[in-house]
Amino acid sequence: MYFASDNSGPVHPEVLATLAEANEGFAMAYGADPLMDEVRARLRKIFEAPDAAVYLVATGTAANALALSTLANPWETIFCSPVAHIHEDECNAPEFYAGGAKLTLVPGGDKMTPEALKASIDGEETRGVHGPQRGPVSITQVTERGSVYSLNELRALCGVAKSFELPVHLDGARFTNAMVALDCSAADMTWKAGVDAVSFGGTKNGLMGVEAVIFFDPKHAWEFELRRKRGAHLFSKHRYLSAQMAGYLRDDLWIRSARAANAKAGHLAEGLRLKQAEFLHQPEANMIFVALPRHAHKRLFEAGAVYHLWGGSMDGPDDEKVAARLVCDWSIPEAEIDRFLDLV
Amino acid sequence: MYFASDNSGPVHPEVLATLAEANEGFAMAYGADPLMDEVRARLRKIFEAPDAAVYLVATGTAANALALSTLANPWETIFCSPVAHIHEDECNAPEFYAGGAKLTLVPGGDKMTPEALKASIDGEETRGVHGPQRGPVSITQVTERGSVYSLNELRALCGVAKSFELPVHLDGARFTNAMVALDCSAADMTWKAGVDAVSFGGTKNGLMGVEAVIFFDPKHAWEFELRRKRGAHLFSKHRYLSAQMAGYLRDDLWIRSARAANAKAGHLAEGLRLKQAEFLHQPEANMIFVALPRHAHKRLFEAGAVYHLWGGSMDGPDDEKVAARLVCDWSIPEAEIDRFLDLV
Amino acid sequence: MYFASDNSGPVHPEVLATLAEANEGFAMAYGADPLMDEVRARLRKIFEAPDAAVYLVATGTAANALALSTLANPWETIFCSPVAHIHEDECNAPEFYAGGAKLTLVPGGDKMTPEALKASIDGEETRGVHGPQRGPVSITQVTERGSVYSLNELRALCGVAKSFELPVHLDGARFTNAMVALDCSAADMTWKAGVDAVSFGGTKNGLMGVEAVIFFDPKHAWEFELRRKRGAHLFSKHRYLSAQMAGYLRDDLWIRSARAANAKAGHLAEGLRLKQAEFLHQPEANMIFVALPRHAHKRLFEAGAVYHLWGGSMDGPDDEKVAARLVCDWSIPEAEIDRFLDLV
Amino acid sequence: MYFASDNSGPVHPEVLATLAEANEGFAMAYGADPLMDEVRARLRKIFEAPDAAVYLVATGTAANALALSTLANPWETIFCSPVAHIHEDECNAPEFYAGGAKLTLVPGGDKMTPEALKASIDGEETRGVHGPQRGPVSITQVTERGSVYSLNELRALCGVAKSFELPVHLDGARFTNAMVALDCSAADMTWKAGVDAVSFGGTKNGLMGVEAVIFFDPKHAWEFELRRKRGAHLFSKHRYLSAQMAGYLRDDLWIRSARAANAKAGHLAEGLRLKQAEFLHQPEANMIFVALPRHAHKRLFEAGAVYHLWGGSMDGPDDEKVAARLVCDWSIPEAEIDRFLDLV
Repeated sequence: MYFASDNSGPVHPEVLATLAEANEGFAMAYGADPLMDEVRARLRKIFEAPDAAVYLVATGTAANALALSTLANPWETIFCSPVAHIHEDECNAPEFYAGGAKLTLVPGGDKMTPEALKASIDGEETRGVHGPQRGPVSITQVTERGSVYSLNELRALCGVAKSFELPVHLDGARFTNAMVALDCSAADMTWKAGVDAVSFGGTKNGLMGVEAVIFFDPKHAWEFELRRKRGAHLFSKHRYLSAQMAGYLRDDLWIRSARAANAKAGHLAEGLRLKQAEFLHQPEANMIFVALPRHAHKRLFEAGAVYHLWGGSMDGPDDEKVAARLVCDWSIPEAEIDRFLDLV
Repeated sequence: MYFASDNSGPVHPEVLATLAEANEGFAMAYGADPLMDEVRARLRKIFEAPDAAVYLVATGTAANALALSTLANPWETIFCSPVAHIHEDECNAPEFYAGGAKLTLVPGGDKMTPEALKASIDGEETRGVHGPQRGPVSITQVTERGSVYSLNELRALCGVAKSFELPVHLDGARFTNAMVALDCSAADMTWKAGVDAVSFGGTKNGLMGVEAVIFFDPKHAWEFELRRKRGAHLFSKHRYLSAQMAGYLRDDLWIRSARAANAKAGHLAEGLRLKQAEFLHQPEANMIFVALPRHAHKRLFEAGAVYHLWGGSMDGPDDEKVAARLVCDWSIPEAEIDRFLDLV
Repeated sequence: MYFASDNSGPVHPEVLATLAEANEGFAMAYGADPLMDEVRARLRKIFEAPDAAVYLVATGTAANALALSTLANPWETIFCSPVAHIHEDECNAPEFYAGGAKLTLVPGGDKMTPEALKASIDGEETRGVHGPQRGPVSITQVTERGSVYSLNELRALCGVAKSFELPVHLDGARFTNAMVALDCSAADMTWKAGVDAVSFGGTKNGLMGVEAVIFFDPKHAWEFELRRKRGAHLFSKHRYLSAQMAGYLRDDLWIRSARAANAKAGHLAEGLRLKQAEFLHQPEANMIFVALPRHAHKRLFEAGAVYHLWGGSMDGPDDEKVAARLVCDWSIPEAEIDRFLDLV
Repeated sequence: MYFASDNSGPVHPEVLATLAEANEGFAMAYGADPLMDEVRARLRKIFEAPDAAVYLVATGTAANALALSTLANPWETIFCSPVAHIHEDECNAPEFYAGGAKLTLVPGGDKMTPEALKASIDGEETRGVHGPQRGPVSITQVTERGSVYSLNELRALCGVAKSFELPVHLDGARFTNAMVALDCSAADMTWKAGVDAVSFGGTKNGLMGVEAVIFFDPKHAWEFELRRKRGAHLFSKHRYLSAQMAGYLRDDLWIRSARAANAKAGHLAEGLRLKQAEFLHQPEANMIFVALPRHAHKRLFEAGAVYHLWGGSMDGPDDEKVAARLVCDWSIPEAEIDRFLDLV
C-alpha cells in the first residue's frame, strides 16, 4: 500500500528490456548513440515538431532549471504558482542555474489564473532598471495538487505571457498523466497552446531517471547543450538515458503507464468518495489530497500503508480530520488499493 | 576494436543483476533506500573511514564540481594540472558550482610536481585582498595521460597543500585503475596520503553512470547534500544509483574490472612495444598514448578500429607518425586487441 | 519644490569641506588612509561596539547585497517585507551576490509583524534538503513607506529570528532618520535589539555616495573584505569615501541632517493635515504618502513641484484623489514647503 | 616622494570645481542628470562614435567586470595576459560577474603577441561542448608593466580576435597615458583598431573614482544598464560621477594630466638612465620598473620615499639589486623627482 510518491515505484519491465538491449558492446558517448536518434525522431513526431531541439537529463530539477535558465536572464523574474516545484522543492536550483534570477509567486493556489498572472506581470513593470525584469512564465502540468489545466486554461495563460512577449515553460513532471486526463495530443498541450519549452517527465511514470527537455524553437539548442554540460548533466554513457526514453516511447508505453496510474487513482478516489471522504482538490490525474480522521490514518499506518500527511500530524484527537496526499503510479496493484479502501 | 574511451563500454552484467534486484516494489526516494545503507557501509569499510560522508551522483563532472565547490570559496583559486579534466573537459562546471572561483594551472605535464605546486601556491600570495585567495588542490589519479602518481608523490603533493592549510581533492574517475596499478589500499591512496575528498569513479569501470563523493571529515556532509540538491543532482529514484554502486562493490567487482582493464591495456602496450611503437607517456593503467605512422592508422580505421587521434590529423605523409589515445575498459575482448596489434 | 527623493539633494557643505581637507597630497589606497581610522573609531564609539567590523561602500544596494551575502548561504532564503528595497529596487542584486539565494516575502505591509515573520519562517521548514533553507531576516528601518519600527517591534522581530538561530540584517538607508524619530541610540536600534549587521546609510542624508556596513561580530570581517573586492566595490582612492563619512560623523552632522529632514517632513505633513489631506501611511520620518485630488497635482506640477505619483496617474477626473510620495531631505528650504502647501 | 601608485594622488582642482558646481540644488538621480548628457556627448565626440553607449561606474574593476560580463557567456573563456589586472588584481570579480567564465592566460609577458593569442585561441577549440568556449579578448593599455601597445600591435591583436569572431575589450585604466604616448586619437586606439568595448579610466589620472564604460555598438546598452544596477554599481547621486568625468573632459584636462604624468615619469626615467639604472621594462607611459641596489632603496625609504619593491625584499646584501615599481601621477612635484634621483 505505497502511495507516498510516483517517484518510488519500480522501473517498467519494458524499459529494463530496452536497457538490456542497449547494453551490447560499445556506443558513442555524450548523446551520439543511435538510440538518441530514435528518441529525437519519436519525440519530434509525437510533438508534431520536426525542428524541435530535444535533450535528455536525469532529474526533473535539472530539466526545469536548465530549461528556465535558457529562457531567463539573471536580472529577470520567473512567474509561477506559490506551490510550484521550482519554488518549493528545488532548493534554489532555478535561481542557481539562472544566475540569481528571482521567482515571482502569482497569488492563488496550485493553478494560476490568467487574471492573477497578468496582475503579477503588470506589477513588475514600472521601475525601469531598478526592479527585476519580467521573465518567463512557468506552468506546472499536472499541478502539485493533482489538478490539470484545461487546454483553454493553458492557452489563456500563454496568451497573457505572449501579450508581454514572455516565453512559457511547462514543468511536465507528470506530463503524460495530464495529457491522458485531457485526452489531447502532446502538441495540443504545448506549442499549440503557446508553450516554448517543456520538461517532459519520465521518471515518475516508470523510468529510472530520465526527463526530456524540448525547445520548439531550435535557436536555443546550442546554448542548452552548453548549459547542460556546464551543469554536469551531460552523461558520458548517454545510451542508458536514451534507452530508457526509447523504451518509454515505444508501443505507447508512456501513455499506457499514465493511463494505468490515472485509472488507479480514479479507482482510489471513487472508493474514497463512496466513503464520504473530503477532497482538498478535485483529483484529475494520479494524485489525491483527501482528509481522513486520525483513527483511519492509524489503522492504515499500522497495516503498513505508506503516504504523506499533508500539513498536519498524528498528534491530536482521534476523530479530527487530517489531510493526506496519495499518489498512484502505474505499478500499484489494484488489490492494494482495495485493501487501503477497506481500512479507511 | 573500440579503444575510444572507457566511457563507451557496456555495463557489467553483475551490475545489471543488482539493478534488477533493486527493481522490486517501492523504495524510499532521495537516498533513503536500503541499498544506499549498504553502499555507505561498504565504502566506509573499504576506505577504513567509519565517519566518512558518502554520496552518489551520476556524472564525474558533478562529483568534481560539487566536491570542489564544497571545499573552495568563490574568491579562491583551485590548483590543478593544465591537462586536468576539471580544466579542459568540464565546460566551466567547477567555476560555475564554485561561484566564479578560478583555476590555477600548475606548470608542467599531466603530473604536478611538489615543487611546481609549491611555486604556484607561493605565487598566489602577496596581494592581500586583491588577488584570488589560495584554495584547494585537485589531483587527478589516474592522470589524463594514463600515468599514476605513486603514493610518495601523492603524499608529497598533499604535504605541500597541508603546509599552506589547503584541502586536497582527488579526481578519481579512474580511481580503481590507479589503485590496482599501485597495489595499495583505497585508504593509502586517499586520507592516509592527505586527501580530504575524493571523486570515486564507477562509470568508466563498468557502471551506467555513478560516482561516489567521499569526504573523510563529515563536517562537509550537510553542505554537500544541499549543494547536490541545488545542483539538481539528487536522484528521486536513488535506489538505481545505489544498486549500481552496490553491485560494483560486491565481490570486489570494482577491483576485478579495473584489473581486467589494466591487464588488457598492458597486453596492448606490450604488443605495441614489440613493434617498436613510440609512447608519449608511459602507460601505467588503462590508457595508452602512442605514435603510429599514418599508414597504420589507415589500416586500423579501415578495419573498423575506433579511437581518437591525439593532436594530429590524417592529412599528411603516410609514413609520418601521428599520436593516438587508446583506452581499454574491462570488456574489450583480448582477440580484438590482438587483431588491432596485427593491423598496426 | 523638490520632493522626489532624498537621493537627489546636494552634498552638505561640511562634507565638501572634509573632502577638500582629504585632498592634500598622497594617501594610501584601498582603505588604509588615516581618515578611515577616524571613521572606524567614531562608528565603533557611536554604536558602542569596540570590536565591530566597519567598512565603507558607495551605494546602498552594495551595502545590502554584500552584507546579506555574507550572512546567507546560496541555498537559503532571506525573509523581508514585500516592499523591501532589496526585493523591489535592486534588480536581483541580493540574489546575484548571494549566489542564487531566494527572498521570502513576509505577508503584510511595509512593516513585518513578529507573527507574520514567525509564520513565514515556520513555512520554510518541513522539506529537508528539498526546499530553500532558512536564512537571514532583513528589516528596513525607516521602512519604504516612511514608517519606523519601535524598539519593541525591532526586538520582537529579532527575537523571532534568534529563536530560529537566524541572523538579522538592518537596511538602514535612512538609519538616522529613524534613530532621531525614536530618540534612541544607534546601539539601541541595532545590536541591543538583536541586529547582527547594518547598512548604515549616508547618501540619502547629505553625502555624495557612502554607506557603512557594520558587523557587530568581527568574525565576518575578512569574508566581507573579499566579497567587497570581488564585487568591485573596494575603492582605490578610498580616502574620499572615508572623508565623506568622517565629515558626516563629525560634530553630529548625521544627526543634525536627519533632524532637519524629519522636521521639514513634519512641517509638510502638519500643513497637509490642516488641509484634511488623507495619509496612506502615518509619516514618522522624512517620507509622506498622501492622497491629493488631481487638480492639486496639476497646480503643483505646473508650478514646478517635483515628486512621484504613487500607483496612479494624471489621467482621470480632476477631483479624484491620487497618491503621491513626498520626501524631504535636510536641504529643502522651508519656504518651498510653504509654497507647496499653498498650492495644494 | 610618493611613487607607490597613481591611485593615491589627489583629485585635480578643476575636478573639485566641477563637483562644487554640480552641488547646486536637486538633480535627477541614477544618471538622468544634465551633466551626464554633457559627458555622453563629449565622449561620443572624443571617440568619434555618435552612437556609442556610454556609462559611468566608480571603480576600474567594476568597469572591467561589467564590460566583460556583457561580452562573455558564462561557459566561455576570456583571453588575456598572465599579468592582466583582471587576472591578478580583481579577486575573481570578472569570473563572478561573468557567472563562472574562465580566464585563459596567453603565454608571454605583459604584452600579448598576435601569434601567442592565436595559438591560445586555437588551443580552446577541439572539444565541442566539453571545453570552455572561446570568449572575448581583453587587452590592457597601458600594460601592467608600463609598456604601450602600438597601434599596429593593437590592430594585429584585434585582427586575430576578429578572425575568430570574438569581441575585444580594452582595459584602459591608464587609457590617456597610452594615448598621449602614442600621440593618436581615442578612436585610433579603440574602434578603429577593432576594439568593441573600453574601460576608459579616470581615477588614476586625477579623479576621485570614475571610469567610463563605452560600447561602440549600442546593442549592449540595456543589458549593461541592468548588469550595472544588479552589480550595485548604479549611483543614486550620479551627478557626482558625471561631474568628475565632465571636469576631466573639459578643456582637455584628461590629456593635460596624462601628459604631465608621462612627462614626470620620463624625467624620472631619464635621470635613472643617467645613473646606469637597469630597467626591467622600457618605460613608455607613467610607470617605471627599475632595479636598484639595496643601499639605494635604504636611503630612499629613510628619506621618506614611498613605492613598491617588485618581487624582492630588503633582506639581503646591500649591493644586490632589487626591482622597484615607480608610478608618477600628474601631481607629483618635479622637485621630489629630483630629490629622489639625488638619493638613488
